[in-house]
Amino acid sequence: MKSDVIAMTPLSLTLGQGGEPKQGTVCIFGTGDFGRSLGLRLLQAGYEVVFGSRDPKNNSLVPKGSKVMTHAEAAQMSRVIFIAVQRDHYQFLTSLTSALKGKVLVDISNNLKMGQYPQSNAEYLSSLVPGASVVKGFNTVSAWALQSGALDASRQVLLCGDDPGAKQAVVDIAHSLGLSAQDRGSLRAAGEIEDIPLQLFPMWRLPLWIAAGLLCFFYFYLLARDVIYAYVMNGKDISFRMMISLANKVFPIVSLIMLALCYLPSVLAAILQLYHGTKYKRFPDWLDRWMLCRKQLGLVALALAFLHVLYTLVIPIRYYVRYKAAASTISQIKENKTNPFDTTLAWRTDSYYSLGILGFGLYVLLGITSLPSVSNALNWREFRFVQSKLGHVTLLLCTAHTFLYGWNKFLKAYSYKWWTPPGYMLCLVVPCIVLVSKVILMLPCIDRTLTRIRQGWERPGTGYNAQLNGGGTRKPLMA
Amino acid sequence: MKSDVIAMTPLSLTLGQGGEPKQGTVCIFGTGDFGRSLGLRLLQAGYEVVFGSRDPKNNSLVPKGSKVMTHAEAAQMSRVIFIAVQRDHYQFLTSLTSALKGKVLVDISNNLKMGQYPQSNAEYLSSLVPGASVVKGFNTVSAWALQSGALDASRQVLLCGDDPGAKQAVVDIAHSLGLSAQDRGSLRAAGEIEDIPLQLFPMWRLPLWIAAGLLCFFYFYLLARDVIYAYVMNGKDISFRMMISLANKVFPIVSLIMLALCYLPSVLAAILQLYHGTKYKRFPDWLDRWMLCRKQLGLVALALAFLHVLYTLVIPIRYYVRYKAAASTISQIKENKTNPFDTTLAWRTDSYYSLGILGFGLYVLLGITSLPSVSNALNWREFRFVQSKLGHVTLLLCTAHTFLYGWNKFLKAYSYKWWTPPGYMLCLVVPCIVLVSKVILMLPCIDRTLTRIRQGWERPGTGYNAQLNGGGTRKPLMA
Amino acid sequence: MKSDVIAMTPLSLTLGQGGEPKQGTVCIFGTGDFGRSLGLRLLQAGYEVVFGSRDPKNNSLVPKGSKVMTHAEAAQMSRVIFIAVQRDHYQFLTSLTSALKGKVLVDISNNLKMGQYPQSNAEYLSSLVPGASVVKGFNTVSAWALQSGALDASRQVLLCGDDPGAKQAVVDIAHSLGLSAQDRGSLRAAGEIEDIPLQLFPMWRLPLWIAAGLLCFFYFYLLARDVIYAYVMNGKDISFRMMISLANKVFPIVSLIMLALCYLPSVLAAILQLYHGTKYKRFPDWLDRWMLCRKQLGLVALALAFLHVLYTLVIPIRYYVRYKAAASTISQIKENKTNPFDTTLAWRTDSYYSLGILGFGLYVLLGITSLPSVSNALNWREFRFVQSKLGHVTLLLCTAHTFLYGWNKFLKAYSYKWWTPPGYMLCLVVPCIVLVSKVILMLPCIDRTLTRIRQGWERPGTGYNAQLNGGGTRKPLMA
Repeated sequence: MKSDVIAMTPLSLTLGQGGEPKQGTVCIFGTGDFGRSLGLRLLQAGYEVVFGSRDPKNNSLVPKGSKVMTHAEAAQMSRVIFIAVQRDHYQFLTSLTSALKGKVLVDISNNLKMGQYPQSNAEYLSSLVPGASVVKGFNTVSAWALQSGALDASRQVLLCGDDPGAKQAVVDIAHSLGLSAQDRGSLRAAGEIEDIPLQLFPMWRLPLWIAAGLLCFFYFYLLARDVIYAYVMNGKDISFRMMISLANKVFPIVSLIMLALCYLPSVLAAILQLYHGTKYKRFPDWLDRWMLCRKQLGLVALALAFLHVLYTLVIPIRYYVRYKAAASTISQIKENKTNPFDTTLAWRTDSYYSLGILGFGLYVLLGITSLPSVSNALNWREFRFVQSKLGHVTLLLCTAHTFLYGWNKFLKAYSYKWWTPPGYMLCLVVPCIVLVSKVILMLPCIDRTLTRIRQGWERPGTGYNAQLNGGGTRKPLMA
Repeated sequence: MKSDVIAMTPLSLTLGQGGEPKQGTVCIFGTGDFGRSLGLRLLQAGYEVVFGSRDPKNNSLVPKGSKVMTHAEAAQMSRVIFIAVQRDHYQFLTSLTSALKGKVLVDISNNLKMGQYPQSNAEYLSSLVPGASVVKGFNTVSAWALQSGALDASRQVLLCGDDPGAKQAVVDIAHSLGLSAQDRGSLRAAGEIEDIPLQLFPMWRLPLWIAAGLLCFFYFYLLARDVIYAYVMNGKDISFRMMISLANKVFPIVSLIMLALCYLPSVLAAILQLYHGTKYKRFPDWLDRWMLCRKQLGLVALALAFLHVLYTLVIPIRYYVRYKAAASTISQIKENKTNPFDTTLAWRTDSYYSLGILGFGLYVLLGITSLPSVSNALNWREFRFVQSKLGHVTLLLCTAHTFLYGWNKFLKAYSYKWWTPPGYMLCLVVPCIVLVSKVILMLPCIDRTLTRIRQGWERPGTGYNAQLNGGGTRKPLMA
Repeated sequence: MKSDVIAMTPLSLTLGQGGEPKQGTVCIFGTGDFGRSLGLRLLQAGYEVVFGSRDPKNNSLVPKGSKVMTHAEAAQMSRVIFIAVQRDHYQFLTSLTSALKGKVLVDISNNLKMGQYPQSNAEYLSSLVPGASVVKGFNTVSAWALQSGALDASRQVLLCGDDPGAKQAVVDIAHSLGLSAQDRGSLRAAGEIEDIPLQLFPMWRLPLWIAAGLLCFFYFYLLARDVIYAYVMNGKDISFRMMISLANKVFPIVSLIMLALCYLPSVLAAILQLYHGTKYKRFPDWLDRWMLCRKQLGLVALALAFLHVLYTLVIPIRYYVRYKAAASTISQIKENKTNPFDTTLAWRTDSYYSLGILGFGLYVLLGITSLPSVSNALNWREFRFVQSKLGHVTLLLCTAHTFLYGWNKFLKAYSYKWWTPPGYMLCLVVPCIVLVSKVILMLPCIDRTLTRIRQGWERPGTGYNAQLNGGGTRKPLMA
């Protein structure tokens, strides 16, 4: 296939004419930043580069070693033409229809915002020059990445186009520039590829909104219970607690809830699969979306846990804490009594800190294995071991840490100021649901059924597949 | 070579027949999870996809745009056939022998555990259908990675097979799906490739066992010396120290020993090379295994050091510590005497903390450079500079930190409870051996000999090579 | 193009002769470490391997399955010959001129230091054997990376050579070994490729020198102001403060200055662009160099901030701090007065810590997004959002943290010991310049002009381009 495509390209003709073996000639329309960077990179990789320009004499900016010609002349020189021109100026290409016939036009353009035009730039280009094969690509690579050749920016070229031969020619160029290429199908995918450089963390939006909502809610909830309550009931101004004490309650609360939210969807999915008796029934959309952003939920939770650790460790250098410690010592002296050492309290607080530290350690480990280069190096079984087994252990440790923090305050009336429960009680609800459900799902009888369902078994008569196909028998994995 | 292979494939025929340019047709036997995900991905990349099924009418699950036919019909459509069927069901392929003649069968199967069958799945498949070229591959890629196209999971396809043309066809498909491919040789390597997704951190086992063993030993050793000693000799219950104080002694001890164990094998290797007078004599197996898991040893040690840092920083908020500080102040007042400020103690403790912090900082730096994406960006000289030079400086700082912790307690009788040395003394043994050996190996006369040996020189008459070849002269690097 | 190249290679002939399908034969001259590792890897990938040796009978070291012949015989077997021989020994190749005619010689050699020879090894090889096509490559891959196949070391092969067919043959071999290849142009680039493995963090030198200079300056500045001043003026020995207190002043000072230095060059660039009225005028060289090492500047600053955090958190367990706290409590009791609680002080210190923690959190986030695998996964817009927007917020938070630390000490005479300002005042100069300039550049009128300039607009008559071309009109992006 490759050989066919290339045998009929002017690329190999150019080779023959040149008399000496070269990578071939590539043409670029437009001498803007991207066009020049691309030209320079092509020259370095051994290509001959020809720029097409309205004003070929104005060639001060093109990289040394390349030529500048009129568009029509330049188009003669190469089969592949990069269109490094903004969409607004595409119109001039209609006058070159005959020169561009049979050429591969690479649309590398980007828009300023999503949905700027009803039609993708590449499809618009294709409609202007119907005789040419348009390939969308290179728009996800920055001019800077081309020039530096650095590992810092994405080096993946996403391509689409209707002509596989044209695509292959562009893939070959990408490879010889040290870039990797991924084929995304026909030119209809161009709109999607054009949207990629315009996205701003699409997978992070939902988790960040959830975090922001929970942070706000708990901050004002605790502000009312702690600071405002103390002011209203006792007339004390402890507003300075807003900066650290309140923050250090809100961060761990939200972190624990979000960690539990990572593991809740897989519990819900298992319950749905058990309920429907098949794995072939689609999950509701909200559950699919939720499952896709579990990693981001977990990383936001980790960031909050990190802040919780720093806020906790800074406690003993706070003025308020030092003042209270000194005041307590002074009052003990003045009243001439010594508080006895409470071994239970020592056990409880030390266990509480120890569980928190171990939980945070595992949490950081989960975060490290989420780094692309680390998770790439894991096989599927290892990845699942870390993210599922270690993840649940982390959740268990952090939940136990919170329970030990609460200890027996659950039973004390003074905990329920204004008849509201303290924040740490509220934050235990979701983790407890997840952990209890997980334990139930791990019971042998339930686990066995679930495993069979996940291997393709369906409860007779209830299967999604069976329903569709009039109850016909189904052989898992061997239809 | 590529052109030969492809010229005779039905792939290009399909192209011709189709009338329109397409990537070609690929056939998949089996409509399980992996088959469907693969089919969807192939469709997206511009291939036509045909599923082979026993029951072609039961096609509700296959991705939109693909066709379902009987196995025999489907096999006609494509040169490359993915066998997305469990090994237990391979038997049915024997009935298709004539249809599969000359086809490329891609065995993508995985087993449930290692050594489940005496013969690898791919070799078994090859024995069932001797007329086809079997290629093992794609089993290391998860269905989920195929669907999401995400960077999170491994995108490397490991291949093996006896027919390079068949392998190349599979490599081309992998590339057009945005996956990278690595050739692992003949079909005999299939068993190895099938084991890869079943491994669970094989390189981490030894370091984790060493860490677990050392942690247990030192925990019970210190439990006896600290808690049990205090109970037996003085009748004091300080069991609450098990949670933090003991842990915070055990973690740094094991961390330092394991850090030293990272650098011990290279010292042993150098001594062996000096002893044998050649680098061409193989190291003993245990040393080879040890050297291969140095990175993992170091990362486990870093994790323990991280826990040590957290356990240390949490000290001042512990109830026990606050109680003791208040009690000490109260007793000073009651006895009406003021402890004088001890400048030496201030110097010693501040230096001790400072060395620990700098050591930990370098330690974290070593850990960061172990991340695959970071070490990939380093050249060989940089990698060795960081891992060897900075590694030894880290070991030196951490050892000095431990010495300052001990200070002059080495000389005090009360340190040797029940005639046992304290834990920090025991943990200094291995680091000191490594550091002293390293200094000796860096002496000019020894270093010069070692460098010559590593460049290929052999001590006359003792060389491994010379022995084998009757003492013939040997020119390093230019045999 | 590919097909042409390969059709005339002995590689495919070898295939035909072999009778059985193989990857082909590759020849390696030299049986040193790299030659043997490469041979083993080629065998694993299905190639036949032939070693060329002066003494073919001395073949004990070559990997099992390969053959050893004389150089002339071995050269017959393969089109591609790897020269795994040190440059000093290249001379012997002149005697093989006829045998090597038309062959692809891959120069994989490395030198011991940069600029060791006036001519690159590959160009020297090419001059010795003018009839062969020399390709430079594989020198950036270590023997260890070849053997382990691990993800830990660089797997990118940088190539250059004058014959694209020869390069393609080497690229194909690299690909089948699971390595990626990047073409760096003609053989003139060989010197550059040979320098790559000899570099030791070239991009880190300037930032590390800046950090070292600033650390030294501030350390001695603060040593004079704190320790020496106390000794000279009050006769107090507080030299123990050198270990932690001074370090914990110097690290944050230098960290903040270096963070500001990351963002200063883009401010300067914007001012220069506004001043010249065009983006087509080159920046001065020092500014270019500065901009290229911004990432390294930022990471060094992050490392110092990390040390600052650890030094701060260790404060409450220091002997000196505990002693002072006890002494203060005792003196309060003795004088029988209680210091009143200062709400303003509580607000100020808590805000100060809180800003510092949030700033450090964002700082760590910036560091994580600098990891190659993370920044690879970001698109250009996301990368700029994190590095520019979040970076400036980090700088703002850290500057505010420093201002709150200083509070009203700016106005107190005792801050100016020996008429010198305290360190934290000095370190606020650069951040304030950056932040104020940034605010000015964000004013709508200035921002609009700057955006237009960056889109290619030039102030009439002042443009760099216009000057060169006699004031001709210029159409941005569409020359």
